[in-house]
Amino acid sequence: MRVLGIDPGLRNLGWGVIDVEGSRLAHVANGICHSEGADLAGRLLSLHRQLTEIVARHAPQAAAVEQTFVNKDGAGTLKLGQARGIAMLVPAQFGLTVGEYAPNTVKKTVVGVGHAAKDQVAHMVRVQLPGVELAGPDAADALAIAICHAHHARIPAAMARRVGA
Amino acid sequence: MRVLGIDPGLRNLGWGVIDVEGSRLAHVANGICHSEGADLAGRLLSLHRQLTEIVARHAPQAAAVEQTFVNKDGAGTLKLGQARGIAMLVPAQFGLTVGEYAPNTVKKTVVGVGHAAKDQVAHMVRVQLPGVELAGPDAADALAIAICHAHHARIPAAMARRVGA
Repeated sequence: MRVLGIDPGLRNLGWGVIDVEGSRLAHVANGICHSEGADLAGRLLSLHRQLTEIVARHAPQAAAVEQTFVNKDGAGTLKLGQARGIAMLVPAQFGLTVGEYAPNTVKKTVVGVGHAAKDQVAHMVRVQLPGVELAGPDAADALAIAICHAHHARIPAAMARRVGA
Repeated sequence: MRVLGIDPGLRNLGWGVIDVEGSRLAHVANGICHSEGADLAGRLLSLHRQLTEIVARHAPQAAAVEQTFVNKDGAGTLKLGQARGIAMLVPAQFGLTVGEYAPNTVKKTVVGVGHAAKDQVAHMVRVQLPGVELAGPDAADALAIAICHAHHARIPAAMARRVGA
């Protein structure tokens, strides 16, 4: 199974693609989309185009997006929400189901604790995807989300095999 | 000039289209998109499809979206932001520039005061677009946003004519 992880953001949107075979993970690609445009609509259009190109090129079978919001800053949350809308839309346009994980769930799955620092996340992504070159912290987070989705998708699959046996 | 106004929302997204000729306004169409789908990605996809169909059918030359956020409820603001991302994206995909107006600006332009009630907005929309049948309060708000954009777009045009004369 090929999984796309997305760490949404209006300025910098991190993305990462991994291949999952049983318990084996392999890095495929990662990067950061920088939105360009004179106004908000133009920047969202720019994100949509870049993400569409990434999904078309890497053809993932599943996608997951980080679920996060900022309670104290309405304007910031709205901006993030708009970028997140695009991040959810594009995989859906390709017929993929899109998983959602809270940041703490991602950290717990990848690092082992829910309150891990960004550096720890990047470190554990490097450990689990040997040889990966990270485009930046947002790309590391996106790969962590893909790893998290792979782990959560694997448990029902393993249970289904056990039931079938 | 044909103007599309959008009042974004994840469950109910209001839209309205008007024709503007000088100071004359005419109603074209209005309605409400109800998002359908088992999950968030599916609902955003549903909104995107409906809104794309509306822009393709009515071929507006300009668009405007209400700019609003809820400071106290991060989850609610995130949801609204995601729907708003789709509302901004679709007109941009058709090459339109997308204006943004705060709710108070819309009310001030259409009703005359910034703190008008929803009923007053619907009433003034009916006055300015004789014969209009409103699909609901969200559609009335969307038409108010379109009227607001028409007023704001008209001032620079009138100034340009004066300079040219």
